[in-house]
Amino acid sequence: MSRYRLTIEYDGTPFVGWQRQAAGLSVQGALEDAILKFSGETVVIRGAGRTDSGVHALGQVAHFDLTKDWDAHRAAAAINHYLKPLPAAVLSCDRVTRAFDARFSATKRHYLYRILMRRAPPVLERNRLWWMVHPLDCERMADAAAVLIGHHDFTTFRAAQCQALSPMKTLDVFDVTRAGEEIHCRLASRSFLHNQVRSMVGSLKRVGDGTWTKDELAAALNARDRKACGAVAPACGLYLAQVDYDA
Amino acid sequence: MSRYRLTIEYDGTPFVGWQRQAAGLSVQGALEDAILKFSGETVVIRGAGRTDSGVHALGQVAHFDLTKDWDAHRAAAAINHYLKPLPAAVLSCDRVTRAFDARFSATKRHYLYRILMRRAPPVLERNRLWWMVHPLDCERMADAAAVLIGHHDFTTFRAAQCQALSPMKTLDVFDVTRAGEEIHCRLASRSFLHNQVRSMVGSLKRVGDGTWTKDELAAALNARDRKACGAVAPACGLYLAQVDYDA
Repeated sequence: MSRYRLTIEYDGTPFVGWQRQAAGLSVQGALEDAILKFSGETVVIRGAGRTDSGVHALGQVAHFDLTKDWDAHRAAAAINHYLKPLPAAVLSCDRVTRAFDARFSATKRHYLYRILMRRAPPVLERNRLWWMVHPLDCERMADAAAVLIGHHDFTTFRAAQCQALSPMKTLDVFDVTRAGEEIHCRLASRSFLHNQVRSMVGSLKRVGDGTWTKDELAAALNARDRKACGAVAPACGLYLAQVDYDA
Repeated sequence: MSRYRLTIEYDGTPFVGWQRQAAGLSVQGALEDAILKFSGETVVIRGAGRTDSGVHALGQVAHFDLTKDWDAHRAAAAINHYLKPLPAAVLSCDRVTRAFDARFSATKRHYLYRILMRRAPPVLERNRLWWMVHPLDCERMADAAAVLIGHHDFTTFRAAQCQALSPMKTLDVFDVTRAGEEIHCRLASRSFLHNQVRSMVGSLKRVGDGTWTKDELAAALNARDRKACGAVAPACGLYLAQVDYDA
């Protein structure tokens, strides 16, 4: 029995999300099908982040076990062959010890959220960012994002269907920077609640468009009430960028 | 009669190219149809660059005339409305004098060519670059590209169907730089022959993979013979990035 660790890129647009569901095309299901086709083995693959429909990944990490030993490079090439023409690809494949668990061994998850501000709709980046015609105040957003950093009860920014045992999380990073016509939000935490990133970005947008002050964002956090959250930001702007593990 | 200048972004993948043809979806045709729908006028729109099928634009420029006067911002919004759901959008629209001609007034055209070097196929950038598994030597390419700069007979890098009167052109810029897993080629000239950029990039790729030396690239140029050209680089990596005009 050998364990394999995959790093995966995907365009979330055509998928129902990472997780295999009763109906619909999932990234997990597509990978499990591709692994079955090349190896003849039925596996259950576990991902570090259960991204929602429309959410992309630059570096999702997952693991699975096979009874037969395969060269890791050849396994990656074979999985990519069977994934075609779906917009998902294995960037790297490594043999790891049985102690490695893509979900539970992860020490940090990094997300990127992209906002485009211009009159014209996105074309080359369609489905790849949150488009808004009216510009947001990036500096105001960067300043206000700081109130969310740290150890907090994030109930306000948690989806109703969230299965986490506790709403307490530690947000390590929430950087907001300007990149041409875009705003990039970079967030990092050991783990996030369901919809936490999109809920926080949607609320921070209210600071960017002048609806909320920084204090009102802090009040939303302190309300510990889902009703205090801003409109959740659309899935298409979100990327699971990277997952960290201890060496 | 008023003249309008458009700057346009498009994903070339679903189009037969810029130019209206007897059959198939062209960018020119899509724009002319959208202009007819909002203004009620049948126009012929002229573009600065007649990009081939699959070639993208970050900043194509075009002009057309309408008998009625429209606010330029409203015209852009209306055209974008009628372009949906096609992957093309007007980035800006300006009223210009009748002396302006998008094709003949252009003083410089800038192209970008993107090459991705990695084992995994592109996913989020699918149809947006030339993918190759084996890395190219970017420094060798950057050094060799210099032999193509200047005033030359570019017959070697000219498609059979090219309609230009002369094969003599002046290539001002051919920069080759590394950007992570990508190589970016940036070229600029007052005008290019048909397929010139893709023919030159395809030939330069031979230097990058060690097939040709810099001297062999120079020999291909000096042969003034289409048969001396390397395999033409695929359309999907090419972007009409910008068109310059005198102020």
